[in-house]
Amino acid sequence: MADLQFYDKQGPFTLAQLAELGHCELSSGDAGSVITDVAPLDEASEGTIGVYHNAKYLDSLKNTKASACIISPDNLSKAPENLAKLVSETPYRSYALIANAFYQPQVKESRIHPSAVIHETAKLGKNCRIDPLVVVGANVTLGDNVHVCTAATIEDNCQIGDNSVIGQHVSIQFSVIGKSVHIKPGARIGQSGFGFFMDEKGHVPVPQLGRVIIDDYVEIGSNTTVDRGSGKDTVIGLGTRIDNLVQVAHNVKFGKGCVMVGQSGVSGSTQFGDFVACAGQVGIIDHLKIGTGARIAAQSGIMSNVEPGAVLCGSPAVPIKSFYRQVATLHKISKKRKTKE
Amino acid sequence: MADLQFYDKQGPFTLAQLAELGHCELSSGDAGSVITDVAPLDEASEGTIGVYHNAKYLDSLKNTKASACIISPDNLSKAPENLAKLVSETPYRSYALIANAFYQPQVKESRIHPSAVIHETAKLGKNCRIDPLVVVGANVTLGDNVHVCTAATIEDNCQIGDNSVIGQHVSIQFSVIGKSVHIKPGARIGQSGFGFFMDEKGHVPVPQLGRVIIDDYVEIGSNTTVDRGSGKDTVIGLGTRIDNLVQVAHNVKFGKGCVMVGQSGVSGSTQFGDFVACAGQVGIIDHLKIGTGARIAAQSGIMSNVEPGAVLCGSPAVPIKSFYRQVATLHKISKKRKTKE
Amino acid sequence: MADLQFYDKQGPFTLAQLAELGHCELSSGDAGSVITDVAPLDEASEGTIGVYHNAKYLDSLKNTKASACIISPDNLSKAPENLAKLVSETPYRSYALIANAFYQPQVKESRIHPSAVIHETAKLGKNCRIDPLVVVGANVTLGDNVHVCTAATIEDNCQIGDNSVIGQHVSIQFSVIGKSVHIKPGARIGQSGFGFFMDEKGHVPVPQLGRVIIDDYVEIGSNTTVDRGSGKDTVIGLGTRIDNLVQVAHNVKFGKGCVMVGQSGVSGSTQFGDFVACAGQVGIIDHLKIGTGARIAAQSGIMSNVEPGAVLCGSPAVPIKSFYRQVATLHKISKKRKTKE
Repeated sequence: MADLQFYDKQGPFTLAQLAELGHCELSSGDAGSVITDVAPLDEASEGTIGVYHNAKYLDSLKNTKASACIISPDNLSKAPENLAKLVSETPYRSYALIANAFYQPQVKESRIHPSAVIHETAKLGKNCRIDPLVVVGANVTLGDNVHVCTAATIEDNCQIGDNSVIGQHVSIQFSVIGKSVHIKPGARIGQSGFGFFMDEKGHVPVPQLGRVIIDDYVEIGSNTTVDRGSGKDTVIGLGTRIDNLVQVAHNVKFGKGCVMVGQSGVSGSTQFGDFVACAGQVGIIDHLKIGTGARIAAQSGIMSNVEPGAVLCGSPAVPIKSFYRQVATLHKISKKRKTKE
Repeated sequence: MADLQFYDKQGPFTLAQLAELGHCELSSGDAGSVITDVAPLDEASEGTIGVYHNAKYLDSLKNTKASACIISPDNLSKAPENLAKLVSETPYRSYALIANAFYQPQVKESRIHPSAVIHETAKLGKNCRIDPLVVVGANVTLGDNVHVCTAATIEDNCQIGDNSVIGQHVSIQFSVIGKSVHIKPGARIGQSGFGFFMDEKGHVPVPQLGRVIIDDYVEIGSNTTVDRGSGKDTVIGLGTRIDNLVQVAHNVKFGKGCVMVGQSGVSGSTQFGDFVACAGQVGIIDHLKIGTGARIAAQSGIMSNVEPGAVLCGSPAVPIKSFYRQVATLHKISKKRKTKE
Repeated sequence: MADLQFYDKQGPFTLAQLAELGHCELSSGDAGSVITDVAPLDEASEGTIGVYHNAKYLDSLKNTKASACIISPDNLSKAPENLAKLVSETPYRSYALIANAFYQPQVKESRIHPSAVIHETAKLGKNCRIDPLVVVGANVTLGDNVHVCTAATIEDNCQIGDNSVIGQHVSIQFSVIGKSVHIKPGARIGQSGFGFFMDEKGHVPVPQLGRVIIDDYVEIGSNTTVDRGSGKDTVIGLGTRIDNLVQVAHNVKFGKGCVMVGQSGVSGSTQFGDFVACAGQVGIIDHLKIGTGARIAAQSGIMSNVEPGAVLCGSPAVPIKSFYRQVATLHKISKKRKTKE
């Protein structure tokens, strides 16, 4: 269903092939049936495969014109009988794998556009692609297969690992970036942070002397800002994924596999364990420790250290059960007052 | 009062002409009086016209040096006697029409700056203006009178309708954009969304296969991010206005005439009816339906579907009357506790 | 400890020299001891100096390998005996001064990169540095020693004062900017604001006819947006510091020395006194007056005028003591209800 002006499609695949690609099992349907595309259940047509992974879309499942569906074992009975079914404990993961087979990441041909401004001392690996009006500064090192998109700029002495993609209009400075990193359009990496001593006689700037270190497989969203360290480095751990418009202040450290959803922000020097997940618009003050596996609900405000595995909500944040009890209590009390009046 | 280094002024106009231009009626003052400019009431000088549209500026109205004022019928008695008055039920709308007459949108001469990088297969309409260091990719189509401002980039296969303005440093990819659309500096349109299956063995990326479809007369603010769809398209309906630093995630659909104020954000696949208004810093989770005409107060958090016409506030949001009752209740109870202690 | 690929170090200095540079006093240690660098206490090695300014880092102080530490008089007893001590009432301020001595702001050689597009009518002061792919429009005036970083664009008729730095990918239009101003990468200055009359028959745009006026010593963060005035100007007062991803709407006026932390936002026409400090993710509605010296806690929502010196928290904001009493009250009541159930 993708617009083929924009995307190149692979396939078709048989259901048997898709079951293997998606790490799932064919529960009903003909293993030899040919599937030509992935599609959302409610926009699907014959010959396509969809995924059911959210109870809000039960109607779409019941009325879909798709020929096959990826579904979890406990939802099997909800699907129409004539729909072929690929069963997976993690249907969305299986969908991702199958969709990646139909639409492989576009690898554009390597080239260096003549309008790019590349310093003579920069070192480019094999098969790099440098788009129009890119700037690559002195002593920059790019690994193999790096794609620097239109109008991105990489300042002197930065390093970028193999297979990384630097999006349109990104700026990078004072940074060491790993392999297979994806930085999306307009992200700002490595500028000086908000560092000064507040003084009514005139704020005194504090020199920002660190770097940004980004580990492999990190994704950084559009127009997100990652300031470099002031003394220590700012560090983004292996496989961490940061969404759009997120603020990462100086000296922040993320462990492995953390997730920061859009418009969340972290103040200076706060340190995260591994696999911490912060939902949208969360704010976290400075100099905290956020334990491994903690999960913070949307719009929460974190003002003290967070235990590993904690699930918090609210501003200031409390354990999520306490939050909902507070919400219910306030609701009941204010209703009672209304009745009295 | 505008700085004529930056703006070209038209006029002067008589009060009679302004009444017609502004869809209002001359209530007092000489129809032939000549007005040379618009101005804020408290910065106005003789010969200018201002507008009174907010009770906070009553002092400015009483002390203005303007010669005329646009005002609603019920505020007429508050204005000084010697001030000429143009009466309108919607004074700010009338002001907008009159100010547009004095300062018509600047149409710069068409040209293609020699530093722009335009692919040989791109098709440009009549009278386009392409500013310095713009990049226009392969098979891009621009309508007539399109203005692409300095350093904006439009990737392969995108379409942009007549009379649209693409601001400085904007990036556009995987997008189909209508007529008279205004995209402001630094907005990011069409990049891949935040799509992956969270897995402690390594997050699995989900291919993002949709587009961004922007209807006519849409405005998108500075440094706002609009991700393309993952399967379905991301759609911005006719005349919708989005402010600065707003996050619009993949698959979101806005109806007609919606308004998103600065720093608000919407998560993936949420669908809006028409004329929904979200104030600043509102957050809305994924996969919701927001009914036509709903209004969401600043900093609210929306975690469930919203009925048409609802007016909500709070995080989690409740009807605005309940919100203020809750605020008052908590205030009273906590005061009482203080007294006891 | 800074990466010398990225930074040029000065020094070394004796403790006596550092005491003078940092406006502090040598309390213990040899005045002639040579110090080669600044460093965070927990990453320091012999011959370096650190700072103790936050009780959270007491362990780092006790275990540091640094040779000297800047510290306040009341913390002196907490530091190891063998550590040389520079005593200051404002240790972080002293650190800033000393670090500035080791790492003076990098002044790159003046040059105009041949890829820059500079209009023939632009006037550049002495010793300007214009990096690759910068665009400078017609009748622009740059003072002496201005540094315009890679890919920044300055539209027609704008003025920028001596010693200012315009970061990578910044866009500037309709603006008059003072001396020693620092605008960080991706900031958007002077675009039209969110001005229209909401009307179900079609929103009517209101012409945006003002400018942005930025006074001396202002700092504006990455990807922050400052809209120009609609009638009046948008004004940023002397020495005000604005962090990343902040929204400043049309006609907003900041006094002297204000501080806006990341992701905060101010709606149209709100006016600030001097030295107002807003923490992260604060939101302020339009047409308010925020008194001199007011301090607003993170994530607060300001919906009415704020008295000078007020300290507020919450959404809607209340005095910070009331806020914490409300939080405590709700906590206790909801716990009690739980016990009853």
